[in-house]
Amino acid sequence: VKQSTAALSVQASGMKKMAAPPMVFIKGEEMTRYAMQLVMDNWIDPHFDTSKWKYFDLSCRGRDDSDDQVMSDAVEAGKDIGAIFKEPTVTPTEIQRVKLGLKRAYGSPNGAMRKGWNGITISRDTIHIEGLRLGYNKPVLFERHAVGGEYGASFGMLGKGSVKTTFTSADGEVKVIDERELTDESNAVVTYHNPLDNVVDLAHHFFSRCLEQNIVPYVVTKKTVFKWQESFWLTMLDVFNEHYKTQYADAGLLDGSGGELQHLISDAATMSIIRWSEGGFGMAAHNYDGDMLTDEISQFHKSPGFITSCLLGKRDDGVMIKEFEASHGTVADMWEDHNNGIETSFNPLGMVEALIGAMEHANSLQGDRPEVTNFTTNLRSLIHKAMATGMGTRDLCGATGLTTEEFVAYIGRQLSGMTAAEAKELYLKEITAKVFDTLDTDNDGKLTLDEVVAFTKRCKDL
Amino acid sequence: VKQSTAALSVQASGMKKMAAPPMVFIKGEEMTRYAMQLVMDNWIDPHFDTSKWKYFDLSCRGRDDSDDQVMSDAVEAGKDIGAIFKEPTVTPTEIQRVKLGLKRAYGSPNGAMRKGWNGITISRDTIHIEGLRLGYNKPVLFERHAVGGEYGASFGMLGKGSVKTTFTSADGEVKVIDERELTDESNAVVTYHNPLDNVVDLAHHFFSRCLEQNIVPYVVTKKTVFKWQESFWLTMLDVFNEHYKTQYADAGLLDGSGGELQHLISDAATMSIIRWSEGGFGMAAHNYDGDMLTDEISQFHKSPGFITSCLLGKRDDGVMIKEFEASHGTVADMWEDHNNGIETSFNPLGMVEALIGAMEHANSLQGDRPEVTNFTTNLRSLIHKAMATGMGTRDLCGATGLTTEEFVAYIGRQLSGMTAAEAKELYLKEITAKVFDTLDTDNDGKLTLDEVVAFTKRCKDL
Repeated sequence: VKQSTAALSVQASGMKKMAAPPMVFIKGEEMTRYAMQLVMDNWIDPHFDTSKWKYFDLSCRGRDDSDDQVMSDAVEAGKDIGAIFKEPTVTPTEIQRVKLGLKRAYGSPNGAMRKGWNGITISRDTIHIEGLRLGYNKPVLFERHAVGGEYGASFGMLGKGSVKTTFTSADGEVKVIDERELTDESNAVVTYHNPLDNVVDLAHHFFSRCLEQNIVPYVVTKKTVFKWQESFWLTMLDVFNEHYKTQYADAGLLDGSGGELQHLISDAATMSIIRWSEGGFGMAAHNYDGDMLTDEISQFHKSPGFITSCLLGKRDDGVMIKEFEASHGTVADMWEDHNNGIETSFNPLGMVEALIGAMEHANSLQGDRPEVTNFTTNLRSLIHKAMATGMGTRDLCGATGLTTEEFVAYIGRQLSGMTAAEAKELYLKEITAKVFDTLDTDNDGKLTLDEVVAFTKRCKDL
Repeated sequence: VKQSTAALSVQASGMKKMAAPPMVFIKGEEMTRYAMQLVMDNWIDPHFDTSKWKYFDLSCRGRDDSDDQVMSDAVEAGKDIGAIFKEPTVTPTEIQRVKLGLKRAYGSPNGAMRKGWNGITISRDTIHIEGLRLGYNKPVLFERHAVGGEYGASFGMLGKGSVKTTFTSADGEVKVIDERELTDESNAVVTYHNPLDNVVDLAHHFFSRCLEQNIVPYVVTKKTVFKWQESFWLTMLDVFNEHYKTQYADAGLLDGSGGELQHLISDAATMSIIRWSEGGFGMAAHNYDGDMLTDEISQFHKSPGFITSCLLGKRDDGVMIKEFEASHGTVADMWEDHNNGIETSFNPLGMVEALIGAMEHANSLQGDRPEVTNFTTNLRSLIHKAMATGMGTRDLCGATGLTTEEFVAYIGRQLSGMTAAEAKELYLKEITAKVFDTLDTDNDGKLTLDEVVAFTKRCKDL
């Protein structure tokens, strides 16, 4: 005899909650914040005691109310705890700033987080759903250098004249890096630098990840023309040859490349991303190239909703800080629909993958309790099965897919012990009841022929 | 009664040749040089007197033999004449340099050409074949700023220390552009500039092209983060608003954008290129973004073989210099097959589009004789019809497609007056004769039963 759902539900919400390992939870904005609250209420809180989580509100309102103190508090807490989940946030335009009555236009949190956590790399990988093909068949892993490049540039808008860039070493030696004449009336002059010390850490992270997933790694640069990028490649190559080459060779992952690590020119990489539609490759690239190429991958793999995003940093004591987020934004148009009473069907997979990643990293920092990973593995599996059996959201299951709220309920009930069949039956009962209530215009709990005819007529008029 | 082919052939090769307007013809290397020679022998020389064309050999051998004098001669001639066709060339790697016994490793001709011709923009558009879908349904036009960006950067590989970039104006005023501390042990410091004076010319070229083809234009930058790119956008916007806005609005091309020119962030553009698979859009971008995005477009549109490439420059007297080339390389693997006696099937469309472009521009500089454009229009149309009716090369027509030489012959015969049906009949006769000759082992012009059986047995053994 099956246990009753009620009993299980009590069990889950009762004394037996698991202790969620300490984690930073950054709240954001709009549709994604609403959906994440549903997820917490239905999927996490019934099973975990999250009293050790620290919450920070990085919505525009939250930042403005605290004069952005909440931003630096979140970074500090992230450094202490080492595991961070972040919802999508809004970086307000000038128009939004005025509309929201903000004191100033707050910048993207990315810069502060990368700096505060000594950002090494942003890993962005394809999400795969068993039994359902999105874009690539096999995983695509990406490592984007989290620092350097034009993001940290200074510039001048200049007329005719001469420009000189000089370097003064710690012991006072002076060296001229660049001298150029500007002959146009209008010029933009740009200086930036790539700090390269942490490329070794990036390399280890990339090559160990690719090896674990049986993926062929490529290092992507434009070094044939941008000669200073040779150094990124050479560091990657050194780490590979010293620590990974033998294992990769043993795994047969170098069979197609004469036993050597492959370099790929960045513009050729834009082509490979489309051509290699089977997936099964990894790319590591500089900051801006990574920005461009990961967005291209996300579109090829259906949408940014199916790409992970993890910022890897390093605390001074060597502990790896990991911040997980979805690759998509706050889904403003769905939020508008929701507020206008229009049904939505938000796919939470990207955010939930981030939550799972953060919880698992938090767990690993606290001694790896299997009960936590058992739960996250089960959660992922339930979502995949729902998506693959037509019980997912409408982006994947079409017009008959579930609404935001129905989907959260369907998975939540299974986490609390219902079988998929039971949860589906309950869902069907609920949506049928909704239709019934619409037809039963006199609310007497019964449909007369007149009521059904009135409905049919209304349908015809539409 | 149809005219006999022989008569037409004499007519074409006789006194009635058209005078080809003066043009620079840059020869390259490998398969593309071989195929272009076939094209010249069969398609152009029978109909044109090309004695006013100036030829330059930019093969590695040609550059080495002349100590690269041929490179500067070609640039000078291009400046004089204003219309240039260029075959793909090889930029030798160190390995190739040694193998070929070159005195030095010659760089890509691109830099010298862009500088010598005051390069403004490289236009790269999709090629479309009537009756055959490649990638995009409607044209995609691209304008890549031909100067500026990291291609002209200087850099230093540096340890800890400080970096300072200063500008000295023509009248001696000094201004600090950038000051930064390097805290890593290893850093790459980069300075470059974007000369912006010719963006006005780029804008006119782009907007007039898009308008002519009824295409929605987008300006692509990363100006939200790379603030110095605002200037490129503002110049484009000014030219658009002053000279084109009304005409675009009248054509209905601004209906989807509230009547305004659209800006697109570069990383979002990598997604649009895949999402907007119907085509019908144009993009104008900075140099490196253009490099990346045009390669992505070329892959989405099947291959670089179906993308044009035209460098637009400007002579001091205001005459527009145009250099046309294919977007693909020298097709080294096919060249190896050819040299090993293996049949090839090279699609010359990309190169022939470039040749047509150069001939038409040369013609326009000389007073626009309609006989020239009648010929080029007919040539393009014959190629398209062949590709769409299974008489094209194997990249488009599969295994039953024609070889490199068969295809050139098939089109050449039609240019000389044969109908498509006659040319096809002749082609079938020729390939049947080849098979017959193989079977007729005693070369007596007749097949005996034994000969056919011997052949059947050989087939079975394979």
